[in-house]
Amino acid sequence: MLGEEIHNCAKKLWPICRSITGSGVRSTLAILKEKFPDIVVKEVPSGTTCLDWTIPKEWNIRDAYVIDPSGKKIIDFQKSNLHVVGYSIPIDAVVTLDELQSHLYSSPEQPEAIPYVTSYYKERWGFCISDVQRKALTPGSYRVRIDSDLKDGNLTYGEAVIPGDSTQEVFISTYICHPSMANNELSGPVVTTFLARWLKSLPRRRYTYRIVFIPETIGSIAYLSKHVKWLQEHVVAGFNVSCVGDDRAYSYLPSRKGGTLSDIVARHVLKSIDPSYISYSWSDRGSDERQYCAPGIDLPIASIMRTKYGAFPEYHTSLDDLTHVVTTQGLEGGYNALRLACEAIENNFYPKVTVLGEPQLGKRGLYPTLSAKTSGNEVRVMMDLITWSDGEHCLIDIAEKCNVPVWDLYPIVEKLRQHGLLSLETSTAR
Amino acid sequence: MLGEEIHNCAKKLWPICRSITGSGVRSTLAILKEKFPDIVVKEVPSGTTCLDWTIPKEWNIRDAYVIDPSGKKIIDFQKSNLHVVGYSIPIDAVVTLDELQSHLYSSPEQPEAIPYVTSYYKERWGFCISDVQRKALTPGSYRVRIDSDLKDGNLTYGEAVIPGDSTQEVFISTYICHPSMANNELSGPVVTTFLARWLKSLPRRRYTYRIVFIPETIGSIAYLSKHVKWLQEHVVAGFNVSCVGDDRAYSYLPSRKGGTLSDIVARHVLKSIDPSYISYSWSDRGSDERQYCAPGIDLPIASIMRTKYGAFPEYHTSLDDLTHVVTTQGLEGGYNALRLACEAIENNFYPKVTVLGEPQLGKRGLYPTLSAKTSGNEVRVMMDLITWSDGEHCLIDIAEKCNVPVWDLYPIVEKLRQHGLLSLETSTAR
Amino acid sequence: MLGEEIHNCAKKLWPICRSITGSGVRSTLAILKEKFPDIVVKEVPSGTTCLDWTIPKEWNIRDAYVIDPSGKKIIDFQKSNLHVVGYSIPIDAVVTLDELQSHLYSSPEQPEAIPYVTSYYKERWGFCISDVQRKALTPGSYRVRIDSDLKDGNLTYGEAVIPGDSTQEVFISTYICHPSMANNELSGPVVTTFLARWLKSLPRRRYTYRIVFIPETIGSIAYLSKHVKWLQEHVVAGFNVSCVGDDRAYSYLPSRKGGTLSDIVARHVLKSIDPSYISYSWSDRGSDERQYCAPGIDLPIASIMRTKYGAFPEYHTSLDDLTHVVTTQGLEGGYNALRLACEAIENNFYPKVTVLGEPQLGKRGLYPTLSAKTSGNEVRVMMDLITWSDGEHCLIDIAEKCNVPVWDLYPIVEKLRQHGLLSLETSTAR
Repeated sequence: MLGEEIHNCAKKLWPICRSITGSGVRSTLAILKEKFPDIVVKEVPSGTTCLDWTIPKEWNIRDAYVIDPSGKKIIDFQKSNLHVVGYSIPIDAVVTLDELQSHLYSSPEQPEAIPYVTSYYKERWGFCISDVQRKALTPGSYRVRIDSDLKDGNLTYGEAVIPGDSTQEVFISTYICHPSMANNELSGPVVTTFLARWLKSLPRRRYTYRIVFIPETIGSIAYLSKHVKWLQEHVVAGFNVSCVGDDRAYSYLPSRKGGTLSDIVARHVLKSIDPSYISYSWSDRGSDERQYCAPGIDLPIASIMRTKYGAFPEYHTSLDDLTHVVTTQGLEGGYNALRLACEAIENNFYPKVTVLGEPQLGKRGLYPTLSAKTSGNEVRVMMDLITWSDGEHCLIDIAEKCNVPVWDLYPIVEKLRQHGLLSLETSTAR
Repeated sequence: MLGEEIHNCAKKLWPICRSITGSGVRSTLAILKEKFPDIVVKEVPSGTTCLDWTIPKEWNIRDAYVIDPSGKKIIDFQKSNLHVVGYSIPIDAVVTLDELQSHLYSSPEQPEAIPYVTSYYKERWGFCISDVQRKALTPGSYRVRIDSDLKDGNLTYGEAVIPGDSTQEVFISTYICHPSMANNELSGPVVTTFLARWLKSLPRRRYTYRIVFIPETIGSIAYLSKHVKWLQEHVVAGFNVSCVGDDRAYSYLPSRKGGTLSDIVARHVLKSIDPSYISYSWSDRGSDERQYCAPGIDLPIASIMRTKYGAFPEYHTSLDDLTHVVTTQGLEGGYNALRLACEAIENNFYPKVTVLGEPQLGKRGLYPTLSAKTSGNEVRVMMDLITWSDGEHCLIDIAEKCNVPVWDLYPIVEKLRQHGLLSLETSTAR
Repeated sequence: MLGEEIHNCAKKLWPICRSITGSGVRSTLAILKEKFPDIVVKEVPSGTTCLDWTIPKEWNIRDAYVIDPSGKKIIDFQKSNLHVVGYSIPIDAVVTLDELQSHLYSSPEQPEAIPYVTSYYKERWGFCISDVQRKALTPGSYRVRIDSDLKDGNLTYGEAVIPGDSTQEVFISTYICHPSMANNELSGPVVTTFLARWLKSLPRRRYTYRIVFIPETIGSIAYLSKHVKWLQEHVVAGFNVSCVGDDRAYSYLPSRKGGTLSDIVARHVLKSIDPSYISYSWSDRGSDERQYCAPGIDLPIASIMRTKYGAFPEYHTSLDDLTHVVTTQGLEGGYNALRLACEAIENNFYPKVTVLGEPQLGKRGLYPTLSAKTSGNEVRVMMDLITWSDGEHCLIDIAEKCNVPVWDLYPIVEKLRQHGLLSLETSTAR
């Protein structure tokens, strides 16, 4: 039922025409803020230099259409905001079919789909339509109109900080710049919002959680240009949240260098919930991890996904919808994987047994009093946990050695702690 | 024929009812001392705190039986000491079949076998019988009697120290607490005794050998509680000797952290004598390595076994005998593997060639004077030994690189040393 | 056509009777000097102690033959210089067939071939003939004559130093001690000579190149005995050049310790030009790498070969010729692999991106302005190059990560450098 709640939130956001700037981003953040009021909206003015980039003009669009020679409105922004190339400059003209063709984008491989196309950094205008529709166009005069602005304004993003016992941070980033598409990308911001709600609801947190809702690429560049030093000093783990809404696969994409806490946690969690999860390499990257893990930035950010961008046929087309692609089960699975990952990070202590030699579990009622050929599985896991609790292995290492999900160890750790047999060491190393 | 001698020793020890304390341990040590007089018998009083444990009361048993309603003695300790649950408190009563049943242990999976059951740390009484016999019991009054003591006394163990050139030690541990069972465990103490005799017979030893004959778990806990610091400072390698008497397999179980000299030697020796030897992991542990390698203790102790405890069908039952399970060949093979391992430790220097570039072997008569397409295999191994004698590889590393058993290198090392071409470096690292 | 030029050079050298000393070495160097005048001829007197060895007497031979009982010259040095055992002492005698047999060497496995046999360090005389011919010999008196000298003289070798920007050196060694055989070994000296010409022709070189043409074993021993300290301090990479003339395979043999720049370059180049290249291990060694990588010398020398010595049927026989075994394509392939390896060493900087986060390639015309589902392959490789340009990966590491030959990266590196986006760090580590 949580999946349903997340799905409903996505449905509410669906119609909004988002881009990397503009009112669509603001209204999206306003709706997410209803679910999670801690989100603070921030803006960076057009023209601001951010690392190697410059914040572009703000883009807003009210309407757009094409009327064919017979007077029929054949392309209508009101029906699908994918019809307009993102960041199209305004146009109001009558053009021949030939002229129109040079501004049309369609996909012969997916003739029924409207493709998603943008042109953020070069001014042009264009329409996206299905290839079927394009092939049916007849010669004549076409009225084309895009009622948009491209003016100095702001890049808008949301940020929420949920404090924990430590000033060390877990960093979670998702993006809010895609118009009406579901897995890539409404799934990221809605799942992240519900994850934030859950984090906030915990009685206490070991780590501080920093969560950002930003436009892809330019947003993470902008955020890093202000905060990179802080993030490098405080972030111990984190995830880029994208494509977490369909129910066809679980996927992992590593940080650039690999081997960070985020990588270890992501692999362990995914292996535990789906042994056939897909493990990508850094060469398959394509979202904001490109910035967070860039050379010299190298934050410990990995990606936990359902079916990865580029890896599903509906990707970046009008077919990526909330009906056939993104489902309640899909969203709940994505949410669940990320929540288990956060729990694993919170619980990832370096347990250390407090006695030399095996503790005598029998006198504490933790071991059978009668020797048989074999002891039960729970006792076995407890013994394995104890034998690896040398202060050199974190709980995830130990779970791997015990061949169980790390969450199976939480109650055993608690029981042994209550008997004074385990101390939990913290370490900033991981 | 050494196998036969070891087997005869085991036969002499067979009838004794051993447990973790008591007169059975003492008479066992007395018989082993006949073969190897250096064994010194030591005792630790009941009630002594050892690490997280306490030495239990001493248990002694003289007789035990059950007489059925018809007056027939159907269970008789004199016929098999496995019939009594180890550490049974005394009982002398007449009970109904129902009452009796709650004190009986049998194994439906092995209906002909008497299972081995103990209850060291919770006072109870019980009998072990075959499931066939149990199923034939009829209702009525049963006379049950166990003539045992459970009183303050001592835990008894044996220790022998065979001095070497160095105060660095090789530590060998075996256990003497199992009643009449053969592979697990009479094979360990008898093979260890003959290994000790051989070590003692050597003209000189590089290392000091410390050999203990102890009850499992509580014995190693007790020994460690006194000696852990000494052992950590002196022991460079060692083995837990158990299940070295059948002829069905060779097996290796690593130290907890792996990669110690003991692990390297054990794997090399076993691979060389049986390429299909079974390599277990630390999660398969089950004997005193659990204590010797516990976190914070971490002695370099591995296990070289024939068929491992738990891995043969007769394990911990009356079927584990000196006829069908443990054989002269089996014992001799176990002895041989451990002896080769000790030899490998003794010879594990870091050889270093004394000249720069390849030595001119021809002028020393070590190389053919006529060049042909290929040189012989012995020359090849000699050249390979020389090329790896850089002072950074121990002899076992080199044997692995040459793809020969390390003992094939001993005569070549000796020849090269006599020609002044090799120096043997010692290193405490391995 | 370069292959043809190299092949012609080999043909010119073919008839000369080379050995580890003598006039054959001198005339070989004289012909190579015609192609590459930088070669300086050096000599080491007989009797000089070099490491564990002593320079032997100089051997020269003018003629040799055997005349059979019928007066027919059945073995004639003028027809094949392989007929005489290398370093044969002079003989002029009439012997019985039986006496002759004890001085004959033939190969029953290759009955048509004259085997190559030497006896450098034990004085003897002998003839090598085909086994077919040997079997046809009839009893009677045989006139045997070897018109040779074995006198104090010199060991002769050639050396060329091609200066570079750095005093760090790339060391290339090949041998000139084999009589008329082609792959092993005229291919090495001729390919090396043309490689040296190309190196010399470069407008500038990052490294200094030191190239030696020496007799095998005793020559490298002699060279090392004078220069080992210099080489250890200056050589960053290098190759032993042997068997680079047939067209049947590419092969790699590592340095003793492996993992040097030479190893990394050799594997990358060979994998890129022939994914099925043969990778040998150090235990397959057999040429001067035995000296250059001996313990305590350990220069970073690997071998890039076509079909390795010992691995082709014609090896060390008269069948190893310039017609059936060594070809123009074979020589050109060997030359090409070594040239690509030298280029890879020259270009193996540690590139470092100059901006934080991904550079905005679009504003520099390096990235498409319109987002589509996927970017082209060239852009992808450029992005991959940038993401790994963290100053911690050398260009070969990056090529491996991008899954392209390193030479595909050279123009991209140049383009990014021109845009100020990459700096090239040098490192002596690799």
